[in-house]
Amino acid sequence: MGFPGSGLVGSIALQYMVDQLEFTQIGSMNSKYFPPLAMMNRGVINIPVRIFEKENLAAIVADIPVHPSICYEVAKGIMDWLLPFKIREVVTIAGIITNETEKRVFGVATSEHALPRIQESTIILPIGSISGIASSFLIECRIRNIDAFGLLGETINAPDPRASAAIIEVLNKMYGLELDVQPLLEQADEIESTMHKLAEQVQTTEALPKKEQQLPMYG
Amino acid sequence: MGFPGSGLVGSIALQYMVDQLEFTQIGSMNSKYFPPLAMMNRGVINIPVRIFEKENLAAIVADIPVHPSICYEVAKGIMDWLLPFKIREVVTIAGIITNETEKRVFGVATSEHALPRIQESTIILPIGSISGIASSFLIECRIRNIDAFGLLGETINAPDPRASAAIIEVLNKMYGLELDVQPLLEQADEIESTMHKLAEQVQTTEALPKKEQQLPMYG
Amino acid sequence: MGFPGSGLVGSIALQYMVDQLEFTQIGSMNSKYFPPLAMMNRGVINIPVRIFEKENLAAIVADIPVHPSICYEVAKGIMDWLLPFKIREVVTIAGIITNETEKRVFGVATSEHALPRIQESTIILPIGSISGIASSFLIECRIRNIDAFGLLGETINAPDPRASAAIIEVLNKMYGLELDVQPLLEQADEIESTMHKLAEQVQTTEALPKKEQQLPMYG
Amino acid sequence: MGFPGSGLVGSIALQYMVDQLEFTQIGSMNSKYFPPLAMMNRGVINIPVRIFEKENLAAIVADIPVHPSICYEVAKGIMDWLLPFKIREVVTIAGIITNETEKRVFGVATSEHALPRIQESTIILPIGSISGIASSFLIECRIRNIDAFGLLGETINAPDPRASAAIIEVLNKMYGLELDVQPLLEQADEIESTMHKLAEQVQTTEALPKKEQQLPMYG
Amino acid sequence: MGFPGSGLVGSIALQYMVDQLEFTQIGSMNSKYFPPLAMMNRGVINIPVRIFEKENLAAIVADIPVHPSICYEVAKGIMDWLLPFKIREVVTIAGIITNETEKRVFGVATSEHALPRIQESTIILPIGSISGIASSFLIECRIRNIDAFGLLGETINAPDPRASAAIIEVLNKMYGLELDVQPLLEQADEIESTMHKLAEQVQTTEALPKKEQQLPMYG
Repeated sequence: MGFPGSGLVGSIALQYMVDQLEFTQIGSMNSKYFPPLAMMNRGVINIPVRIFEKENLAAIVADIPVHPSICYEVAKGIMDWLLPFKIREVVTIAGIITNETEKRVFGVATSEHALPRIQESTIILPIGSISGIASSFLIECRIRNIDAFGLLGETINAPDPRASAAIIEVLNKMYGLELDVQPLLEQADEIESTMHKLAEQVQTTEALPKKEQQLPMYG
Repeated sequence: MGFPGSGLVGSIALQYMVDQLEFTQIGSMNSKYFPPLAMMNRGVINIPVRIFEKENLAAIVADIPVHPSICYEVAKGIMDWLLPFKIREVVTIAGIITNETEKRVFGVATSEHALPRIQESTIILPIGSISGIASSFLIECRIRNIDAFGLLGETINAPDPRASAAIIEVLNKMYGLELDVQPLLEQADEIESTMHKLAEQVQTTEALPKKEQQLPMYG
Repeated sequence: MGFPGSGLVGSIALQYMVDQLEFTQIGSMNSKYFPPLAMMNRGVINIPVRIFEKENLAAIVADIPVHPSICYEVAKGIMDWLLPFKIREVVTIAGIITNETEKRVFGVATSEHALPRIQESTIILPIGSISGIASSFLIECRIRNIDAFGLLGETINAPDPRASAAIIEVLNKMYGLELDVQPLLEQADEIESTMHKLAEQVQTTEALPKKEQQLPMYG
Repeated sequence: MGFPGSGLVGSIALQYMVDQLEFTQIGSMNSKYFPPLAMMNRGVINIPVRIFEKENLAAIVADIPVHPSICYEVAKGIMDWLLPFKIREVVTIAGIITNETEKRVFGVATSEHALPRIQESTIILPIGSISGIASSFLIECRIRNIDAFGLLGETINAPDPRASAAIIEVLNKMYGLELDVQPLLEQADEIESTMHKLAEQVQTTEALPKKEQQLPMYG
Repeated sequence: MGFPGSGLVGSIALQYMVDQLEFTQIGSMNSKYFPPLAMMNRGVINIPVRIFEKENLAAIVADIPVHPSICYEVAKGIMDWLLPFKIREVVTIAGIITNETEKRVFGVATSEHALPRIQESTIILPIGSISGIASSFLIECRIRNIDAFGLLGETINAPDPRASAAIIEVLNKMYGLELDVQPLLEQADEIESTMHKLAEQVQTTEALPKKEQQLPMYG
């Protein structure tokens, strides 16, 4: 599960994985509860949530943030839909903002017996809480007795392919993907430079709600 | 589709097009989910959303901003209603605020094979996201496999007929409209001067919610 | 239709009209969607919306602001209810805050052929938008092909009988009412002086939501 | 009706009345629309709304503020429930914050013929509006042609037994209660001193919504 | 009932009790009305609400704050579910923030005859109000004539095992638990030091709602 969160860590990591390993897109999701928001990739817009598979792996990649008030239902809905597929385990990816420049990956699991699966590739989080859609997936899996893991990439408050690369290194260990992160790191340079250029030209705008103030209005 | 957004680019462009090319109004829309807001034109108020056609072109021109929470349903509703008409392609217009004084037009499409249609007349957006009703139309079209294009006129945070004129130049190339933008640019001068005059006299007011404070109130 | 807006222009004008011309009250309205708010008049409280008639004129006078989210439905509900009465035309009154001390009346109509009806007694608004319940009535009338007029009295952000008097001058011309505004202007002096005296003694309070902080609270 | 408002005037006055005159508690009310809030009295918590009677008098005493969005329905619900009891008149108590140190009581009524009932014991309010549950009761009574009175005790923004005592003096005149307010004024001294002591030790806290920030959270 | 509140007093106290006295987990609760939030304990995430029992005691331990708008229904739902179990009494734990460094425990009850049960082990609160889920449980119990007690641990605005230890001393007296709080106080040192270390590295982030601002957005 790669939903956007701090640093878009999950979205970038899984989109890179499905692109590089040539997963097959088997479906997509949209919902009236999703915000009206489309990401674009070299001029082509994406459907907000996309489902891919390759051999015994499936990936759900999302571009849109899920509002806290519907996290429970989105997570429950997806887990209900996955039930017939006899899932062995679930990995959900999120970001965690720190003041460090390292790109460590922290880990949590839904049971003590599952912890060893991520004990070597992540730093187990001793205390605290996890929020958002990632927490909803983890709780939902725990209730259904499905082993699930939360991978939290150390990141900054901006798209962060380097944190995503660190996540992929963990996935490489967990699933033997042998996915090369070098192109992602190079893409990181490119993305950062494009964004820097765009930022100079373009101001972010939340267009609609402010429209009413553009013309004199009487009432 | 010309819904208002930054600079009212889409509304102004399409209203100008239907006026100048003498499209026939074939319908209008109102909804309890629309804000209570009527635009006026030389003293006559408009119905918030109006539908026009001429030959093989149809235009939906809106005066009211669509709240993010209903963008999905408005876009889906309109696309459902359009289905029987065998649409060839959809163009949705929005504004994009930059710090430049240029009036460039950026473009996105719903598929890679559709990109060439706008590659010469717009600057393809390499990365980023598009929000609001425009994104809902684009996603809805992509899901239904209808080619759709987003034209994003570079604009400012005020009614901007010059950005609308740039959009019309793109529509001219896409549909061979041969629509002269000179009157629109002159209208721009007129609008700007009228607005400037009004701004001196009239303060914008969101009247109702503040009414309660006008009389002493006890409770 | 006299709903409160900037300066309470519509409420004051119509209440004065029904009082002076001795209209008969034929009904009243309340709704769970109205705010809990009662205006009082010499110690007697009013029902929020009151309906009056005299000969071929009817007046709907409201004391309560209508929240934007229900303007559509209130306007539609009232127009539905009015349908059997074969209405010839509708006038809705609102306020418009300007920096001028003049008390001009601006006008809009639902169609070009109706404009001449108000062209001499008002200043036709060339551009802009009108919001709130007044816009909902105008749109609703335009959809039903009923001629309707918006009269916008130039006002300040306080009860303004002088702006209401200017509106009555327009109604005098439109309906031959020959209603003398002199008592209203004198009432204006009285209201202003009463309010000034009250303002010295009484602080406006929105009582209920703050109550929770009055006693130490534990949780 | 004694619902809390500015100074908790109504709650304190009626609770004192039912305690001193030994009214019998005949019922209580709770609702999912009430805020989660319990007042305590010497260590024992109250049900939010309590109903008492004695001879031909009934009292509804409330500890919880009623949110504006449900005032209409709470007032309508209570009046519906009271209908079979053939009510002669209703008195609803509220507070009114002024800059004066006096403890005057202002009055409003639902009809002109009812005004004399309170003309000597209160100062009739000439103009203004009344909001909250008190206004809902008054409007509801006026619609049902039940004489109702609003008593507005001049108060400050803190529990104010002295304003409640002034209200009781009015009730004494209206209903011949001969209720001694001296103990309430002494209780006022006690409450003020207890609250002062508590205020030194205890900070008001709105506990739950802030809890999420207490532990490091990742998402 | 141990729901989080100021200082997480109730959650920490009851979790410690069920761990140390080896209660059996007999159930858990999740709800779409709960916020998407999972607490973790040495890398393993918890289901938000957990139910334990041992002999004649049951404990409901919660990690998630309950929003005011659903406190009534959560408390009513849990009390409905408990009804068949013939409950003798209910204890609900909350925190109370003061400026003191002491760790006193304040107490309230649902009836005067129940007060002696806590009169020696707590300081009875003379006046004030209690809010949130704790107040909903107390009101619900009072309506059902079930003796219930509110224990309010003096705390600070951060996880506070020392306040929880004070609560446990009261529970020791009420139920003869003989639970040693020494390990909890040592755990307090450990928690405080872990949190201090984490606080240096990790910034709290409410990830999702801010995501939209990370990429340039057009609309």
